[in-house]
Amino acid sequence: MKQIAILGSTGSIGRNTLRVVEALKGDFKVAALGAGTSVALLAEQITQFQPRVVAVADETCAELLEKELHQRGYTNTPHIGIGVEGLCEVAVCEDVEIVIGAVVGALGLLPTYRALEAGRRVALANKETLVIAGELMTRAAEKSGAELLPVDSEHNALHQCLRGETHDEVKRLILTASGGPFRTASLDVIENATPAQALKHPTWRMGDKITIDSATMMNKGLEVIEARWLFNRTADEIGIVVHPQSVVHSMIELVDGSIIAQLGVTDMRHAIQYALTYPARLSSELPALNLATCGTLEFHEPDTERFPCIALAYQALRTGGTMPAVLNAANEVAVAAFLEERIKFGQIPRLIQAACEAHTPQPVNNLETVLAADQWARHWVLEKIPLAVGSSQ
Amino acid sequence: MKQIAILGSTGSIGRNTLRVVEALKGDFKVAALGAGTSVALLAEQITQFQPRVVAVADETCAELLEKELHQRGYTNTPHIGIGVEGLCEVAVCEDVEIVIGAVVGALGLLPTYRALEAGRRVALANKETLVIAGELMTRAAEKSGAELLPVDSEHNALHQCLRGETHDEVKRLILTASGGPFRTASLDVIENATPAQALKHPTWRMGDKITIDSATMMNKGLEVIEARWLFNRTADEIGIVVHPQSVVHSMIELVDGSIIAQLGVTDMRHAIQYALTYPARLSSELPALNLATCGTLEFHEPDTERFPCIALAYQALRTGGTMPAVLNAANEVAVAAFLEERIKFGQIPRLIQAACEAHTPQPVNNLETVLAADQWARHWVLEKIPLAVGSSQ
Repeated sequence: MKQIAILGSTGSIGRNTLRVVEALKGDFKVAALGAGTSVALLAEQITQFQPRVVAVADETCAELLEKELHQRGYTNTPHIGIGVEGLCEVAVCEDVEIVIGAVVGALGLLPTYRALEAGRRVALANKETLVIAGELMTRAAEKSGAELLPVDSEHNALHQCLRGETHDEVKRLILTASGGPFRTASLDVIENATPAQALKHPTWRMGDKITIDSATMMNKGLEVIEARWLFNRTADEIGIVVHPQSVVHSMIELVDGSIIAQLGVTDMRHAIQYALTYPARLSSELPALNLATCGTLEFHEPDTERFPCIALAYQALRTGGTMPAVLNAANEVAVAAFLEERIKFGQIPRLIQAACEAHTPQPVNNLETVLAADQWARHWVLEKIPLAVGSSQ
Repeated sequence: MKQIAILGSTGSIGRNTLRVVEALKGDFKVAALGAGTSVALLAEQITQFQPRVVAVADETCAELLEKELHQRGYTNTPHIGIGVEGLCEVAVCEDVEIVIGAVVGALGLLPTYRALEAGRRVALANKETLVIAGELMTRAAEKSGAELLPVDSEHNALHQCLRGETHDEVKRLILTASGGPFRTASLDVIENATPAQALKHPTWRMGDKITIDSATMMNKGLEVIEARWLFNRTADEIGIVVHPQSVVHSMIELVDGSIIAQLGVTDMRHAIQYALTYPARLSSELPALNLATCGTLEFHEPDTERFPCIALAYQALRTGGTMPAVLNAANEVAVAAFLEERIKFGQIPRLIQAACEAHTPQPVNNLETVLAADQWARHWVLEKIPLAVGSSQ
């Protein structure tokens, strides 16, 4: 029985991971759970899975959690860590073999790094970790021998496609993109889109932040950067194709012109189970894809004019150093501001571009450098936001 | 430089193999060429590739060939073998590592068997060999350590999809079928289709026999039987999905619900090159697939009512023994009769079914048994053909 730890257990990926663990009863033991402020749900997870170590956002949450557990008559109270330090305790919890990295945003950076340093297999659903600090993470993994396995469906698909191939015989990775809710929308409609419109993702149900990233297609831009580190590829070796049905999760093109694709239903549990059981594949009761009933599949070139975030991400990847961290932080702040209706949808890419242009990229030799760039970009964009309302430039 | 031999060098696969060898200049040397009656083309191939051994259909062809070579001023005359014996000489030609098995029909059986016995890698494009004598062929390959690599696009795709997977973790092979020219035709239109209509294949350009098999969908039925032997699967583990665009060449379904597919352009040279260079993949100048320009992809369940050959093939596979040989022989004779306009298109499956029903299957322990069943079925169907004209039952 393999012990696992989940960073972000109350989020979408975290909850699905626990469903997978439950379905594979007996194969995995949940040793540690890291959450934020969703104390009631965490308490429920604790009583069901009985971890030894947990983490919550702050002292107040910790007190609330203790009270919740007491009210439920649960006496096997775990060690409760606080904040990022608490998440790090979850990440390196003793005897854990697999850490699921599913904390949204830059918060997942340090705990993931600690898990990789400690040689744990990290099943990574947090895109930002590799976008911000891909070089540091992959270096840490190499040093300790840790495996880094992708949980988001596109990279997980690439990982599956690459199983039988050698590095030199793969010409290109091709990430599929649903195109989001504005795939066929005009520039003008996109410019003035509301949060309600942007949150209507056509095929996947995910968290708000990722859903907005899908609407701007920054999601795909971030995935290009992530793929660069996961699979050791250059920007030129990573392409994007728009595929509205999200049935083909991603593809690889081989040097001989052959394309290998991974297809499946849009259920994150498939990718989660794959990352947990790799290199084995276990039978699952999850719904399987029936191609004969899934209708027609379409593929288009992405439109970088209506979706400038794609080009911004490629540019940041090519610039390298701290630039992807700035791209990511600027995006996080801009998306949050959009969700709070403080900026227009069309201002998200313009704010990111402005932040990248204002930034002087530094080489990345330690976490402090990227965290400083991250902080710089957050402040820079936050300062610009009051001015941005109503402006179209 | 690897030496290769081609059984069926003047046919569609043979000619494409020589184009691949030419494109990969320096990697492969053509040591032997086996043909039938296309003497002029064979002479041209001989002057270009300078094989040591060749084969033609009979003495008359051999004399014609010598005359052709003499007229061309070619003095490096190869050894010329005759008929099946000649093809067997091509198959076991000394120092050859790879034999391309591309003779159409049951004629390829013995030479392929000899190549496998001799431990040669066989790149097999002749479906009938495995349909008739799959058990014997795979047993011979196991004994000598010979590799059996599929060249037709569907099985080649399956081979590519299976590269990174273990046998027990693959749930099902899914062969894609274009559906042929009568995919959307009514039973009545199919019943009375002319050779000209049946030869209009929507996506692949192939020989006449295979094109008619595609129109009846017997092609796919034969491929199911072929897949059974190539990949050691039961009939239940092999499915068919109709995919009119022929962009996805085939797929596998894993036990965890994931599907891996191989996609490419409809050019046989891809599969031929793969079988020659495996396990390596070499760069190729062949056209690559551009998904963004290939339109929409559709998938449907096959209709076994309008295409009864599919069910006949599954039934023959499940019965086993000599039954698939009878299915194949009956099909060859019926297709030839149809092309000669001696029977209606709709009578092809009825003749095959009648032959299978009239046959008492025997276990297959040697080539003689299957060849006897093959001969029995050919005579049985030929005898029925005069009676079949104009009948609808």
